[in-house]
Amino acid sequence: MSRWAIVREELLETKRKTIVREAARVFNRRGSHGATLDLVAERLGVTKAALYRYVQSKQDLLYACHEEAMEIARESMDRGEALGRNGLEKIQIGMAAYLREMIGVMGVPVLILEENALTGKQAKHIIGLRDAFEDRMRRLVREGIADGSILPLNPKLAMFVLLGAVHWVTKWYSPDGPWSADEVADGLIEMATRGLAARPSETLVANIHKY
Amino acid sequence: MSRWAIVREELLETKRKTIVREAARVFNRRGSHGATLDLVAERLGVTKAALYRYVQSKQDLLYACHEEAMEIARESMDRGEALGRNGLEKIQIGMAAYLREMIGVMGVPVLILEENALTGKQAKHIIGLRDAFEDRMRRLVREGIADGSILPLNPKLAMFVLLGAVHWVTKWYSPDGPWSADEVADGLIEMATRGLAARPSETLVANIHKY
Repeated sequence: MSRWAIVREELLETKRKTIVREAARVFNRRGSHGATLDLVAERLGVTKAALYRYVQSKQDLLYACHEEAMEIARESMDRGEALGRNGLEKIQIGMAAYLREMIGVMGVPVLILEENALTGKQAKHIIGLRDAFEDRMRRLVREGIADGSILPLNPKLAMFVLLGAVHWVTKWYSPDGPWSADEVADGLIEMATRGLAARPSETLVANIHKY
Repeated sequence: MSRWAIVREELLETKRKTIVREAARVFNRRGSHGATLDLVAERLGVTKAALYRYVQSKQDLLYACHEEAMEIARESMDRGEALGRNGLEKIQIGMAAYLREMIGVMGVPVLILEENALTGKQAKHIIGLRDAFEDRMRRLVREGIADGSILPLNPKLAMFVLLGAVHWVTKWYSPDGPWSADEVADGLIEMATRGLAARPSETLVANIHKY
């Protein structure tokens, strides 16, 4: 590809990401039933025709939002695995990064609650990515049990407690409220993972009055 | 009221409850968009006309399901407050009872995820009940902090971590799976509340291999 073509590709990709993220905010507020391409176009200050250059339908856009969310999950867990010194830390760092990014970039992860809005191949692909994410979390719980950072509890139940605490954020968090995305991510993950920890966390006690 | 009239009233109320609970199961499986009165009637083995004696519309039925869920929440917290010896125990007993009842009686609490399907006065009433439930939980967290059973953490964040873990059950629990409603309720609440506890829980460690 010529340098010019690469720059154009990158530009298109950046525009597409902007659209996907704005769309995610609209879906978050309206639900997948209430959101329309018109609303997304209006929020972006572009015409619907311009929007159609990047996405073919509302369904496409919803699918792209889910893909973006799963990409954020994957990158966050990569980060957790790179920086954490044991299973518990890997989960804490990874999940805090996931929550922070989701809130900061996409509004809130309400999409996760609406995967029923996808159908056919698109649903299958997203469910596959989600299963891989959950497998990875379970594996990290098992790793933590093996290295002594996590109590020998059921990895599946532990994972669901964490995912529930994280995704519920969508029901109550408002960016206009008193807490920043960072504060919620760190505070919530500490509180939620404390139940798994084999040893008490010193950070939780130190930060306890912050939130 | 004559004795005969009282018996008839009670019978009607029992029938209505049966309908509401069966409807909750249908809503859980199909979502409020996919469920129909026909489906509920079919599951109950009655005609749609018979169903109309008890409920006027799908919207009515959805509302009744929400009312029933909030009634279960209230009774469960009453139980927690009666039996718990401190703030933490009250929350643990109350929330485990809530989860057990919700799973056992109504299938799973998916309804909680769909309160947007209600409108007008009905929405207002249910949101009021939910707010009262959340206020009560926050108050119990504060009580636990005061009596030393709960760490001095933010009551609102603590409550959301718990509610998230509990309501997420809807996304993964199946009554046909390996866990009973009791096992899930006890195991999940122990794991989720351990993050709040000022002292380590001995029960969790004792039960850890059960789930």
